Amino acid sequence: MRAEIITIGDELLIGQVVDTNSAWMAERLNENGIELYQITSVHDDRAHIIAALDEAFGRADIVLTTGGLGPTKDDITKHVLCEYFGTHLVEDARVRAHIHELYKERPDVLNRLTATQWLVPECAEILPNRVGSAPLMIFHKDNKLLASMPGVPYEMEIAMKEQILPYIQQSAFSNQPTAILHRTLQVTGIPESSLAILLEEFENEMPSDLHLAYLPKDGIIRLRLSSYGGMTKEEMEAWFDRLKGLVTDYLIADSDEPLEVIVGRILKEKGATIATAESCTGGKLASLLNKHAGSSAFYWGSVVSYDNSVKEQVLNVPAEMIKRCGVVSEEVVCAMAESVRKLIGTDYGIATSGIAGPSGGSEEKPVGTVWMAWATPKGTYAECFHLGKLREQITDRACMKALIGLLKILNE
Amino acid sequence: MRAEIITIGDELLIGQVVDTNSAWMAERLNENGIELYQITSVHDDRAHIIAALDEAFGRADIVLTTGGLGPTKDDITKHVLCEYFGTHLVEDARVRAHIHELYKERPDVLNRLTATQWLVPECAEILPNRVGSAPLMIFHKDNKLLASMPGVPYEMEIAMKEQILPYIQQSAFSNQPTAILHRTLQVTGIPESSLAILLEEFENEMPSDLHLAYLPKDGIIRLRLSSYGGMTKEEMEAWFDRLKGLVTDYLIADSDEPLEVIVGRILKEKGATIATAESCTGGKLASLLNKHAGSSAFYWGSVVSYDNSVKEQVLNVPAEMIKRCGVVSEEVVCAMAESVRKLIGTDYGIATSGIAGPSGGSEEKPVGTVWMAWATPKGTYAECFHLGKLREQITDRACMKALIGLLKILNE
Repeated sequence: MRAEIITIGDELLIGQVVDTNSAWMAERLNENGIELYQITSVHDDRAHIIAALDEAFGRADIVLTTGGLGPTKDDITKHVLCEYFGTHLVEDARVRAHIHELYKERPDVLNRLTATQWLVPECAEILPNRVGSAPLMIFHKDNKLLASMPGVPYEMEIAMKEQILPYIQQSAFSNQPTAILHRTLQVTGIPESSLAILLEEFENEMPSDLHLAYLPKDGIIRLRLSSYGGMTKEEMEAWFDRLKGLVTDYLIADSDEPLEVIVGRILKEKGATIATAESCTGGKLASLLNKHAGSSAFYWGSVVSYDNSVKEQVLNVPAEMIKRCGVVSEEVVCAMAESVRKLIGTDYGIATSGIAGPSGGSEEKPVGTVWMAWATPKGTYAECFHLGKLREQITDRACMKALIGLLKILNE
Repeated sequence: MRAEIITIGDELLIGQVVDTNSAWMAERLNENGIELYQITSVHDDRAHIIAALDEAFGRADIVLTTGGLGPTKDDITKHVLCEYFGTHLVEDARVRAHIHELYKERPDVLNRLTATQWLVPECAEILPNRVGSAPLMIFHKDNKLLASMPGVPYEMEIAMKEQILPYIQQSAFSNQPTAILHRTLQVTGIPESSLAILLEEFENEMPSDLHLAYLPKDGIIRLRLSSYGGMTKEEMEAWFDRLKGLVTDYLIADSDEPLEVIVGRILKEKGATIATAESCTGGKLASLLNKHAGSSAFYWGSVVSYDNSVKEQVLNVPAEMIKRCGVVSEEVVCAMAESVRKLIGTDYGIATSGIAGPSGGSEEKPVGTVWMAWATPKGTYAECFHLGKLREQITDRACMKALIGLLKILNE
């Protein structure tokens, strides 16, 4: 069973908006045994949308579209779908009632433009949009299916989870699910090409249905094994275990879970808590640690000491030490980590101090130099990294180094 | 002059990676007067890549591809391009020397797989990749052009800026540039549909070449006027000024710049500094304020007080006050903002305290309730918001509210 995604909106094609919807939908489709063949982003343009629909239906059984469903003039998806499926708009009393309920405390929204939202294509099945005014629409064509959803990410996500995926599963399509299997592990500390040489024999012995992909990012390489229907779960596990055995020296995780989730789970299991003292990462590490629900169980707080005065006055790093060793130094970063651990009263404290650039570098400490320390009940460890030349790359990689270091300490 | 982007990689179609490259490239193309017609994401699959190339060349003059250029087996783009353009691989001494220079301090990377990176298609023009091992390749076909770049975002960005865009501008294509014009403003505090009714007359009077798009996100609506070749810059400015006049009550910015950039510039102009005390936003606001180069001039630091103990011990919020008013309250958030302003010694202090969910909500204070305070030299202001139901949406919107509030104070 094959699907395609068409994302509709000029904003995608002038770079005003990053298409995050497609990756989210792709993951859900895969989980549900539906192969995503292609993603296409097109303009809010009648001829362009129609051409993309024709092409997608030529390749896939399910076409998912997002975007172009707002009440404003630039949004034309609903009208183009009417033309494509040879139907016209009719009023839907259920959608009308839903929108009145949705905006009952904001009567100013119930204007004549919002009223166009309860006009729906006559031939479409209409599903309620729990959190927005644009209804979800499902069309059928030659035993194939099209589902149209809003482009607002959280509306799309709720629509997919609560309406569209259950609909697809209950439909005739559910008779032909494919057993799509993915298994991912994460390694660090080895170049991609050396890793590939290490795995050469393994790759040569893999059956033709099994694929191995290398995904390097922020100093971590994710290794993904994929099978699209030709393998049982047990066979996949056997190949995965063998792969794991080959990379054991570099292994940091045997799943695709983000490192902050893995670290958070271990901290929770241990009943341990953490705080951060951040200079160059500027709150990014804190934000990552508390990104997911339930983080208050292990993450207590942070001091972002961007300016030296904050290092001195809040974290009590001696001004003399900063002057003597430099702010990007082993001494200062250890003092920061120990101080924040004590100040906030946690089991672990992580500190970062580095040169994120573009200015501030020197020959001795070029842009990308980052000192990092982990203060633990058993002592404080520090390490210096060189993390590249670009500001965002440096801070992203620094966060990953901080989590990898913590993971090693927690697993000891 | 029309371009298309083809992003190549299974990781995009199983949702393991979000395609951020396309939006970045789209923005650069538009700036350079090149219309981006379509973005297509395809698998690491020979037939799929070839079909996508044929289709893209059928619609556009320039095809940009990213991805599939690594030294590992799953990366096949170079081989498929050889087949497509009827050529074969030859050794390139310049690329060989460049890769040796690149890895001179990491001889372990110079293995036989890395050596495949200096094999290049004979008919392609090869441009150096300053920061990576995969060379950039340019192919010509029927007066059209294809440029192949790595998928690693920062490698692609440097390649586009330093090599590919200058190449396109110097080529024959530069004789037919289109004057693509975009002007964007940002408004808040009005529903999208009400805004569209307010602008109805304006939209009806717009010439057919002028397009108006509504882009709502995190409580802000961006209004974008676009013209693709039919309008002079002066005409566009006149329409933009008229639009601005119509939305003046809701206007927060007359450009597409991120709010944190605008706020940062005003702070720098005023020589003013800022600190944040964050509970529910957990460092995200800090991270936003120091995201861009030069932020150390105005952003000094933050206390992320996720746990109440941090509010009490670091920010000196009385435990009695937290008990009496609740941690998500006007009193506590004002105390946090004033305390962080004093602690870090800045001109402004912003504090957030809210219920990001999914748990922790009550009937009186449901998930999404966020109290926010701005401590300023002229006094402290606080406001309560209801920012939705989803954790990430709530914290993203809270950051925007914090910046909008600060912008209003700074503009007073």
